[in-house]
Amino acid sequence: MKVDIIISADDIADSKIKNKVAVVIDMFRATSVIVTALSNGCKEVIPYLTVEETLENAKKLNRDDYVLGGERRAVKIDGFDLSNSPLEYTEEIVKNKRVLITTTNGTKTLTKSTCAKRILISATINAKAVAKKLMQINEDVVIINAGTNGNFSMDDYICGGYIINEMLKEDKNLELTDIAKTANMIYEGNQDIVSYVKHATHYSVMKSLELDDDIEYCTKKSIIDMVPEYKNSKITLTSNFE
Amino acid sequence: MKVDIIISADDIADSKIKNKVAVVIDMFRATSVIVTALSNGCKEVIPYLTVEETLENAKKLNRDDYVLGGERRAVKIDGFDLSNSPLEYTEEIVKNKRVLITTTNGTKTLTKSTCAKRILISATINAKAVAKKLMQINEDVVIINAGTNGNFSMDDYICGGYIINEMLKEDKNLELTDIAKTANMIYEGNQDIVSYVKHATHYSVMKSLELDDDIEYCTKKSIIDMVPEYKNSKITLTSNFE
Repeated sequence: MKVDIIISADDIADSKIKNKVAVVIDMFRATSVIVTALSNGCKEVIPYLTVEETLENAKKLNRDDYVLGGERRAVKIDGFDLSNSPLEYTEEIVKNKRVLITTTNGTKTLTKSTCAKRILISATINAKAVAKKLMQINEDVVIINAGTNGNFSMDDYICGGYIINEMLKEDKNLELTDIAKTANMIYEGNQDIVSYVKHATHYSVMKSLELDDDIEYCTKKSIIDMVPEYKNSKITLTSNFE
Repeated sequence: MKVDIIISADDIADSKIKNKVAVVIDMFRATSVIVTALSNGCKEVIPYLTVEETLENAKKLNRDDYVLGGERRAVKIDGFDLSNSPLEYTEEIVKNKRVLITTTNGTKTLTKSTCAKRILISATINAKAVAKKLMQINEDVVIINAGTNGNFSMDDYICGGYIINEMLKEDKNLELTDIAKTANMIYEGNQDIVSYVKHATHYSVMKSLELDDDIEYCTKKSIIDMVPEYKNSKITLTSNFE
C-alpha cells in the first residue's frame, strides 16, 4: 500500500491520482466546514467553483431546503447565509438541509480530483477516522492538499502527516514517498499541530481576520469519527460497511 | 527578499521563477559533480538533455579538450568517460577541459529554468558559498530541486533547507514561503544531513548500487567555497565581483 502527497491544487495531475484513493484536505477551513456540517446532520454538501454557479443551482431548490456557505479571500460572500467558519454550521442551522458551498482552494481541489478511484474528505478534526477508513479500503492513497492559491500550505501538510502517522500505527510497512515520509516526520515533531501551523502564511491571514476561534476548532484532533466522501458532485458520509 | 522552493523539475513553471534568482539542486549527484569538476579546474561544464545530443556536440571538439560524463538510471553511459560520481572528476582528469554531461534529473531542471534572472548551481558541498552569494545578489530567490523523476526528493529538499538556514544567519527577516520554512525546520532538526537523507528513496537506490563513497562525499557540508552559474547553455564559476 503506497501513500503519496500532492502539495497543492495546482499540482494535481491525473497521472498522480488515477487508480488511487484520494484524500482532499483544506483544514483552514473548507474541509473542516464539510466534516462539521455533515456531522451536524446536513443531508449533503454540494461544492461549486464559482459564486454564480452556486446561486444558479440554489434557485432550483426550495429556500427552506438549503443554506449557502463559503468565502472569497477568507471572508463571507455577499448574500450568502454562512461564511467559511465551521462554527457556524451548527445542527440548528444545517440539519436535514443541503449545504451549497464555494471556497477558493477547497472546491477547486475537489473538482480537479475526479479521476481518483474514490475521494475522501479530511481535516484534522476527523483525521483518525480517515486513516482507519483508508486502511480498511486498502488501496494506494494520494493525499491532496488544497494548499493556498497554488502553493504548499503548512496546515494541510501536517494534517496529511497526522493521517499517515495514524495509518502507520496499523501497518508499519506502508510504502511512503519522500514527501509523505517528511509529512509524518513534521507531525511527529509537532503532535500538537499548532506549534507547526502557527508558522503558516494562512495562519497569519486568519489571525489578522481575528478568526482565533476557528483556528482553535480546526486544530482539534479527531473530535469527529466520520468520513465524508465526494461522489457524483456531492459530499455525503461514507458508511462503515462500504 | 523572498525565498521559495520548487520541489521537482516537473513542477517548474515560468511564473514561479521569472525575475528571481534560481538555485538548482541535484545533490545526488549532478550538481555535486558540477561543483566538484569546476573546483578542480575544468574550463566549463556543458549540460545536455540526451545522450545523442552530448555525443553530437562532442564530435565538434578536439578529443583532448573534453570529457564525457553522466548517467542513466544512476549508471555510467556506454562509451562515456565518467559516470555521475563526483569522485571521478579529479583535477588530473578535468583540469582545463570541458565537461559534457547528461543526467536524468539535473540537466532537465537546468534547461527548464532558463527564464530565471540568474541560475546558480548548488549542492551540499558548496551550500554556504551559495547562501553568501544569494545575500550579496539580494534579489528574490527560488530554490529548484531537481527531485527524482518528477517527485520530491528528501536529499535536494534538505540541501535547500541548509542554504536557507545559512541565509537566515545573515538576515532573520527573509520572507519564506511555507515550503521554504519547512525545509529550514527539517534542516534544523537534521543538521548532519544524513539522519534525514538516509530515509530518501534515492538514498536506497544509491546504497543498492554500493555508491557509499558518493553518499559520504555528497553529504559533506560546504567543503567547496565556489558558486557555479549556468549562463548561455554553459556552467562556469561566478566571480566574487559579479
